[in-house]
Amino acid sequence: MDTPHPSPLSNEVLKADTHVLAFDVFGTVVDWHGSIVREMQALYPAVDGNAFALAWRAGYQPAMQRVRSGELGWIRIDELHRIILNGLLAQFGLAHLNEAERVHLNRVWHRLDAWPDSVAGLQRLKKKFTICSLSNGNLGLLTNMAKRAGLPWDCVLSAEVFRAYKPDPYAYLGVAQVFDLPPHQVMLCAAHQDDLVGARACGLRTAYIERPMEFGAGQVKDVSPHPDNDLHAHDICALADLLGC
Amino acid sequence: MDTPHPSPLSNEVLKADTHVLAFDVFGTVVDWHGSIVREMQALYPAVDGNAFALAWRAGYQPAMQRVRSGELGWIRIDELHRIILNGLLAQFGLAHLNEAERVHLNRVWHRLDAWPDSVAGLQRLKKKFTICSLSNGNLGLLTNMAKRAGLPWDCVLSAEVFRAYKPDPYAYLGVAQVFDLPPHQVMLCAAHQDDLVGARACGLRTAYIERPMEFGAGQVKDVSPHPDNDLHAHDICALADLLGC
Repeated sequence: MDTPHPSPLSNEVLKADTHVLAFDVFGTVVDWHGSIVREMQALYPAVDGNAFALAWRAGYQPAMQRVRSGELGWIRIDELHRIILNGLLAQFGLAHLNEAERVHLNRVWHRLDAWPDSVAGLQRLKKKFTICSLSNGNLGLLTNMAKRAGLPWDCVLSAEVFRAYKPDPYAYLGVAQVFDLPPHQVMLCAAHQDDLVGARACGLRTAYIERPMEFGAGQVKDVSPHPDNDLHAHDICALADLLGC
Repeated sequence: MDTPHPSPLSNEVLKADTHVLAFDVFGTVVDWHGSIVREMQALYPAVDGNAFALAWRAGYQPAMQRVRSGELGWIRIDELHRIILNGLLAQFGLAHLNEAERVHLNRVWHRLDAWPDSVAGLQRLKKKFTICSLSNGNLGLLTNMAKRAGLPWDCVLSAEVFRAYKPDPYAYLGVAQVFDLPPHQVMLCAAHQDDLVGARACGLRTAYIERPMEFGAGQVKDVSPHPDNDLHAHDICALADLLGC
C-alpha cells in the first residue's frame, strides 16, 4: 500500500489557503461501533453487540435515502435511528423494552466515544483553523456528543442546518457559505471516500482519515489512499502534523 | 431600585429543571458599542465613533423588520449590516472607502470584545448546563467572534439556523426543538427586556443581565428588574452564582 507524500510545496499551499476544516463525525471522529458494543454489553449482555451495531448502522443510508428522495419530509437522524431501532428490537430479543428504555437506547448515538487521537488532534488543529462538524447527525445529538466527549468544535454544523443530507451538494457548499469562503478554502476530513467524492465535486479540499476498525475487528476496512484526496492521514493527530499544527 | 431575591426554593427548582442556557449576544455577551468606538478610533480617528456606532446599531431593528415582514427574503445580518453601513458612510465622511475597506469595516461585528465577566461566567455555567448562543447574528459571524473572544459555546445557534429573527417565536422554540426539550427547560439570558418577553411568551425561562453601558457612557441604560423574569443578574458571573455554578 503506497501512502502519498504530498510535496512540501503543495502542503504549504494547502496550509495557507485552507481556513475551515469540516469533519465528518460518525466513524471519523467517534467510534460508533465500539461505543455501541460496549453499551450493549453493559445494558443487554445477552445480545450480540457487534451484530446489533452493524445492523443498526446498515439501516442508516437507506433511511436517509428516503429523505433525500423526497419519500419522507425532513426527518432528523434521531428519528431515523429510532425507526431503524424499532425494526431491529424483535430480531435481537429486545421487544420487551419499554418506551423509556427505547428512548435511552436510541440516544446511545449521543454518547459515542471519540477515537483516542480525536480530542488531542482537534485541539491542535483548532489553534490554526476553524474546526466544525459536518455530520448528518442532528445538532442536539452532535452538541451532546461533543460536550460528553470533549470535542472542541468552534461551531457545530449539521445536515440539519442545511436540511440536506450528505452527499447532497448543498451540505458541502453550505459550510463555505456560512463562512463566506470559496469552496476551496474549506477542507472536508472524513474516513469515507464517498463523502470525500461529494465534497470534491463541490470544490472543497479533502483529507482522508484512516479508521480501519470503524466496523469492528471482524470487518477491517480498506483504508488505501485515493490519489484525488489532497491529504491522507493515519489519524487526526497525523492530520495536524501534515498541516503544521 | 429593588433587586428581586428569588427564594431558595424557586432557585433550586430552576437549577434542577433548566438544561440549556441560550444567550443573546450583541450587548449581552459582547460590548458592541465600546468595540466599534475603539476600532473607529484606531482606523478613522476623525470620525465620532460613539455617534457612528449608535447610528449603525439604530439601523438594525428596522433592517430585520424588513425581513420579518416579508419585504425582503432571508438576508443574513452581515448583509444587513452592510446595507446600513452603505447608508452611513457619506454622513460620517467615509464615502472614500474602497470595497476592501468597507468589507473590513463591516466585519467589525465579527471582532467584538466580550464584556470582562463573559468568558469566566460562561466557563462556570458550561460545567453544569449546555450553553449556546441565540443571536440574530449569522453563524459565521458568531463563530468568528467566539473564536477570537474565547466564548466557550457548546453550540452556536443563530436566527440563521431557524430562518427567523427574534422575537419570532420560531427562534425561541427552535432551541427547545434542537435539544428535544420542553420550552421551560431552556432559559434565555439577555440584556434586553423585549427579547425576554418574546422568550417567555414561548414558555422559556428568562434571566435578565444588566448591561447599563451597552450604549456607552453617554446613554446609560435603565437596568431595573422586571418581576416576570425568573432571574436578574448583575453580569454573567452573578448568573453563575444564582445558578449554583
